[in-house]
Amino acid sequence: MSELSVNHLLGIKYLNQKDIQLIFETADHFKEVINRPIKKVPSLRDITIANLFFENSTRTKLSFELAEKRLSADVINFSSGQSSVKKGETLIDTVNNILSMKVDMVVMRHPNPGAGVFLSKHVNASIVNAGDGAHEHPTQALLDSYSIREKLGEVNGKKVVIVGDILHSRVALSNIFALQLQGAEVMVCGPKTLIPKYIDKLGVKVETNLRKALNWCDVANMLRVQNERMDISYFPSTREYTQQFGVSKDLLDSLDKEITVMHPGPINRGVEITSDVADSQQSIILDQVENGVAVRMAVIYLLASKIKQ
Amino acid sequence: MSELSVNHLLGIKYLNQKDIQLIFETADHFKEVINRPIKKVPSLRDITIANLFFENSTRTKLSFELAEKRLSADVINFSSGQSSVKKGETLIDTVNNILSMKVDMVVMRHPNPGAGVFLSKHVNASIVNAGDGAHEHPTQALLDSYSIREKLGEVNGKKVVIVGDILHSRVALSNIFALQLQGAEVMVCGPKTLIPKYIDKLGVKVETNLRKALNWCDVANMLRVQNERMDISYFPSTREYTQQFGVSKDLLDSLDKEITVMHPGPINRGVEITSDVADSQQSIILDQVENGVAVRMAVIYLLASKIKQ
Amino acid sequence: MSELSVNHLLGIKYLNQKDIQLIFETADHFKEVINRPIKKVPSLRDITIANLFFENSTRTKLSFELAEKRLSADVINFSSGQSSVKKGETLIDTVNNILSMKVDMVVMRHPNPGAGVFLSKHVNASIVNAGDGAHEHPTQALLDSYSIREKLGEVNGKKVVIVGDILHSRVALSNIFALQLQGAEVMVCGPKTLIPKYIDKLGVKVETNLRKALNWCDVANMLRVQNERMDISYFPSTREYTQQFGVSKDLLDSLDKEITVMHPGPINRGVEITSDVADSQQSIILDQVENGVAVRMAVIYLLASKIKQ
Repeated sequence: MSELSVNHLLGIKYLNQKDIQLIFETADHFKEVINRPIKKVPSLRDITIANLFFENSTRTKLSFELAEKRLSADVINFSSGQSSVKKGETLIDTVNNILSMKVDMVVMRHPNPGAGVFLSKHVNASIVNAGDGAHEHPTQALLDSYSIREKLGEVNGKKVVIVGDILHSRVALSNIFALQLQGAEVMVCGPKTLIPKYIDKLGVKVETNLRKALNWCDVANMLRVQNERMDISYFPSTREYTQQFGVSKDLLDSLDKEITVMHPGPINRGVEITSDVADSQQSIILDQVENGVAVRMAVIYLLASKIKQ
Repeated sequence: MSELSVNHLLGIKYLNQKDIQLIFETADHFKEVINRPIKKVPSLRDITIANLFFENSTRTKLSFELAEKRLSADVINFSSGQSSVKKGETLIDTVNNILSMKVDMVVMRHPNPGAGVFLSKHVNASIVNAGDGAHEHPTQALLDSYSIREKLGEVNGKKVVIVGDILHSRVALSNIFALQLQGAEVMVCGPKTLIPKYIDKLGVKVETNLRKALNWCDVANMLRVQNERMDISYFPSTREYTQQFGVSKDLLDSLDKEITVMHPGPINRGVEITSDVADSQQSIILDQVENGVAVRMAVIYLLASKIKQ
Repeated sequence: MSELSVNHLLGIKYLNQKDIQLIFETADHFKEVINRPIKKVPSLRDITIANLFFENSTRTKLSFELAEKRLSADVINFSSGQSSVKKGETLIDTVNNILSMKVDMVVMRHPNPGAGVFLSKHVNASIVNAGDGAHEHPTQALLDSYSIREKLGEVNGKKVVIVGDILHSRVALSNIFALQLQGAEVMVCGPKTLIPKYIDKLGVKVETNLRKALNWCDVANMLRVQNERMDISYFPSTREYTQQFGVSKDLLDSLDKEITVMHPGPINRGVEITSDVADSQQSIILDQVENGVAVRMAVIYLLASKIKQ
């Protein structure tokens, strides 16, 4: 039977095209499961998973927790508010302690890029990166691609523009890797100051005019504006941002074609996207959320089957 | 078989007398269950419930969570501390996201009056209002009436006084609706500034003299003093409040009859009620807590059976 | 069949030698269980346990929660952040309310010494003290002794030094009681200002020179430095503390014999213990964490079997 080429999900850049295909086929199965009246499978009854969230999160944490519970895993939660991280304990000590309690898998969000990679080298458990600083957020990229595949049949050959603060976005980076691996063309669009200089090396198009970007693409993935960053000098004001990079229904209707709109959430309605867009037929935002549970079930299931061997 | 006339529990004002009777008969069954050595029933194994608490809560949240777990539902918790509400997401987006994760029922506490009603119109899940601003707190009123029925045999014909800050109390409003629906006479008692002007239209007696109120009633429901409000101009000081509206054992013993004392908790011992009253035989405060789990099991069970149809 | 002499675990000082032996033999069994692929037993399916943490905690809370879940108990969590303790509710009210929800056992951490004893006198549930102020932390002492027994065959006759802030440490006090009960010799070592005056009455040796203490002992239990206390006048600076009471690999290698090093965690690497010591073969720090789950399963299991009678 097929299996992943990796023992951890640390980033999209460690996956190959077959891995993604396997995850998607497995997610297809779990998406059927979670739409049945009884949404649970007993697959992982003997697995204990620790969710370690060293940064605030709502939907990612809930989505993982639901995925784990629907696989019947035992779940323990650990958020930074309660943690001894505040007491100055090192990451490796925190996690070693949790592993000594016989945990099989760790789902971790951490502010430091590479935190997951570091862990995977030092501890004996399967690691799932749920976001590491501005580095990667692989399950988000997988569910984004899965949602494109569901809406448009396949990812291969599609044109996808990622709009917003590319510089600080782990969602952008993981999406670029995932989309390219599947044969999509990728463009980024945003204020010049928020597009990283290394972007050319990634084989990605750059566009600072939103209308041009939208006219080019099949899919626009609108990143969330981080209001808390908007007072820093090289950021535009929220008003300026919305004028230049916000998507409204009027703008969408004025394009030559009907594009698909995505957003990783939570939405700032009226900032990067208007309400009429968010709630329109072109938006697949809620499909992304639903698919998130199925894709995470697939990732956890596939990694767990490697533990058991 | 009997069923509720509603698909949500948004407020007592949406229920009829038969609904309350059905909830109480179902709660009778669950009260037996939670007093058995094995307190769990497998009824809701295929139901996922999200507890969304946008305001702090202790006992209400624990009570709902216990009720859900004893019905074998899958439970996910979401408190405002962890939530993207802080990130500026709208209520509808937060809940839509959670529903896209295939949640069947939402138990919600929210600071805005009408938040539950709003939700029920926009999302495809059963909504239980666990307190919406100063509007309603229907499960509290149901467990209060259930406790009166348990203590005194029936609610019909009983005289109940609600003492305290009626103006800001969702407990008061839901209790008024519930008691009247069951044929009880209701009086409110408190400082004039804390009794709403619309109270007359509700068919409720008003009394500002506590002794007179207590001499009239069979049951006194002592509301919690919200200390954080006591520095506002139209509030009495805590000392003044206690002198005029606090219940002591001496006061109770000086009445013509033995009344029953209730409190929704948490108690400010020595403010609205003294310790010797709280711990006396006349107090049914701990029965209220116990009955809270049984009544919430009943509400959730009855609403869930409407989902399954 | 054997059973504990107590109905609660309030402190080591309430246990006898046979209790400890029974807990350890039971923990031996559960240690096998948690090292099997399926780490769960159905023993406590009919028990509901409330974890009441009125102080922050990471590993203790996780360890108890895992122990409870692996015994298949129903678990509800209650942390001070969410609690009505903040609203001014008394401890007895909080707990009475939770007990009215039909909870069988309470695991409590509380800042006040004696909080557990107080509870056990007033409420009808089995109480496990998970740390009460500077008083006792009995499960920590039990897992420490269990880890010494595992490493050195037995506790009887062993020489154990506890190093650090003895004055403010519930870990120190519980360890002294547990070690003496099992026939070990106990020494404390630390700055004079941090050794309590009553220490002589406990039959404990005192040493302020770390090298002498280490040369004497078989086992050194290095307490955590509480950085937040280090600015108080009678505390040494962190630098002074480390120079006089920190353990390095060089220091260990210069001793006449190989001693065993313990730490209750979380570690301040480079303060009370260097990284090379923490990660060395002489350290049993991670064994302590693993044994913590097994010992807590044993305590909860044995107390629960007394409830059922």
